[in-house]
Amino acid sequence: MRRVDLITTGGTIEKTYDEQSGELANRRSFVRRMLSELRLEDTTVHVVELMSKDSLDMTAADRESIAEAVRTACARGEEEELSGVVVLHGTDTLAQTGECLYKSIPQPRVPVVLTGAMRPFEMKQSDALQNLTEAIFATGVLHPGIYCAAHGRVLAFPGVRKDLARGTFVKAG
Amino acid sequence: MRRVDLITTGGTIEKTYDEQSGELANRRSFVRRMLSELRLEDTTVHVVELMSKDSLDMTAADRESIAEAVRTACARGEEEELSGVVVLHGTDTLAQTGECLYKSIPQPRVPVVLTGAMRPFEMKQSDALQNLTEAIFATGVLHPGIYCAAHGRVLAFPGVRKDLARGTFVKAG
Amino acid sequence: MRRVDLITTGGTIEKTYDEQSGELANRRSFVRRMLSELRLEDTTVHVVELMSKDSLDMTAADRESIAEAVRTACARGEEEELSGVVVLHGTDTLAQTGECLYKSIPQPRVPVVLTGAMRPFEMKQSDALQNLTEAIFATGVLHPGIYCAAHGRVLAFPGVRKDLARGTFVKAG
Amino acid sequence: MRRVDLITTGGTIEKTYDEQSGELANRRSFVRRMLSELRLEDTTVHVVELMSKDSLDMTAADRESIAEAVRTACARGEEEELSGVVVLHGTDTLAQTGECLYKSIPQPRVPVVLTGAMRPFEMKQSDALQNLTEAIFATGVLHPGIYCAAHGRVLAFPGVRKDLARGTFVKAG
Repeated sequence: MRRVDLITTGGTIEKTYDEQSGELANRRSFVRRMLSELRLEDTTVHVVELMSKDSLDMTAADRESIAEAVRTACARGEEEELSGVVVLHGTDTLAQTGECLYKSIPQPRVPVVLTGAMRPFEMKQSDALQNLTEAIFATGVLHPGIYCAAHGRVLAFPGVRKDLARGTFVKAG
Repeated sequence: MRRVDLITTGGTIEKTYDEQSGELANRRSFVRRMLSELRLEDTTVHVVELMSKDSLDMTAADRESIAEAVRTACARGEEEELSGVVVLHGTDTLAQTGECLYKSIPQPRVPVVLTGAMRPFEMKQSDALQNLTEAIFATGVLHPGIYCAAHGRVLAFPGVRKDLARGTFVKAG
Repeated sequence: MRRVDLITTGGTIEKTYDEQSGELANRRSFVRRMLSELRLEDTTVHVVELMSKDSLDMTAADRESIAEAVRTACARGEEEELSGVVVLHGTDTLAQTGECLYKSIPQPRVPVVLTGAMRPFEMKQSDALQNLTEAIFATGVLHPGIYCAAHGRVLAFPGVRKDLARGTFVKAG
Repeated sequence: MRRVDLITTGGTIEKTYDEQSGELANRRSFVRRMLSELRLEDTTVHVVELMSKDSLDMTAADRESIAEAVRTACARGEEEELSGVVVLHGTDTLAQTGECLYKSIPQPRVPVVLTGAMRPFEMKQSDALQNLTEAIFATGVLHPGIYCAAHGRVLAFPGVRKDLARGTFVKAG
């Protein structure tokens, strides 16, 4: 049995529709509903609902609290068989948070995999479940390090950025 | 074989998600995709894509052009076996358009059924297909008149209004 | 508030997949899950789980027990505001059960609407929710009588039969 | 741009429902429809529709033709940037085919990843897309070898078997 800690921070992937305002916003985490649509064997996912924010609204303090949550997960996992950490994050500043994690946790004990979605999980056509699947799977096969997994591939930090026009992540340079 | 004319005007039911802005907006009609998920026997649906508007932005001229489209459908249908007319409409001012139709077409030749949705068709949980199903079905069973069909029931104009708190339509009074 | 009694008997609409045998079979009713995907206002649905059978396996006694359940619903509904009765049924012998109901309940107090599906509700492409929507909606707009509602239209008994090649119901003759 | 060759052989993952017989069977490949629901960047998937069989009906000759298709993919890929090979397969004898591949292709040039599903892609609740996602993703991160990817993890051949009671794959021993 391997254990994955999943830290949710909000972002498009968890945006929900408000019928009265007609708008999409982050109100609560959807991650348990997403997980219920996956079939995971020999894998326990521990959910940490850290915050529920559009990543454009994230402050330096928010990013520090994400880094703290990742460190805590790694530390708590020393007694148990921690396989990796997944961070659900808005795509707009996911790369910025990844760079912070890369600097503040230079040698993580396990793979730390950030992911998000271009379209909310609540929409019929969404990359949310695919990206969550890839991130959880990635924690079982990658070496320790800070990564972004989405759209069929994994990119290692540093040097990841969002390509707004293509709607995905790419390696800078 | 019965014929139903389906006039689309936009509204929440046809709102689509823009990945770059992260917003929902009316850009084009989704009605053909919706129809492809229904199984209709002995029923041909003729789609008239009239406009693609949030109903809060509709003007008196827009409503007049909807009335004109309904009159045209009824007239054109005299030679063929027109069973009824469905109008897809934003819920916020659907009742206002229904009252206009009631005044300007006091004796329609067939049932004219307005419907819309509280949640876009593009979302996983949506009342869009249910309401479209009910509106098309209603044209086959109701007497001529102006109606709103949604959420399991039909309401006859005049006197229909949206109950914003409940998120549905009710009879005024 | 109108009340609809919904009697489930099984059929393709409620077939479920068994992972070990790889087969579809009737094991239990799915009707509550189906209802949870509909949005019904001013309508309470009382579910009666009568049996869970492939309609090809139904006996004369099964059909009599369906008739009895319909009569009981009508009788119980006299005190309350019973709007109609829906019977979920396998399509293969739905018409046979409808003819039985037509003979044994010549003057029902409310509309009795039979429906089913050509593809199980559990499949992505299914007419299950559409037909259930139509049947519930029909109980609110039809005169008392025995009907079949499916695929966008309603057919009155007697004289309904399944058209196997087209995969729908038609009027005999 | 990485290239993945995807060989389809049938199995539960591609079973489709026949409305006239009411049964599930392998008739054609669904893999293009599945792929259209994934969002893959910098990854081209070349589909080889090899056969469409329930894996319980596979013969030794069928398994040899799968091995031949894997060898052909590897050989053809030498000029291009072949990232890996995915084999869609029925779960009942997937492990048997994996052992054959392990013996007949002891040193594949790229990762060869077998996957399948416990429930058909056509059903609402299915592990099909998750497992396909994992298999494609795995070809980008694993070392050359023969593997099974499903349900959140990867298992290396030899020594994989299906655990019928749990409905997943496990390492023998």
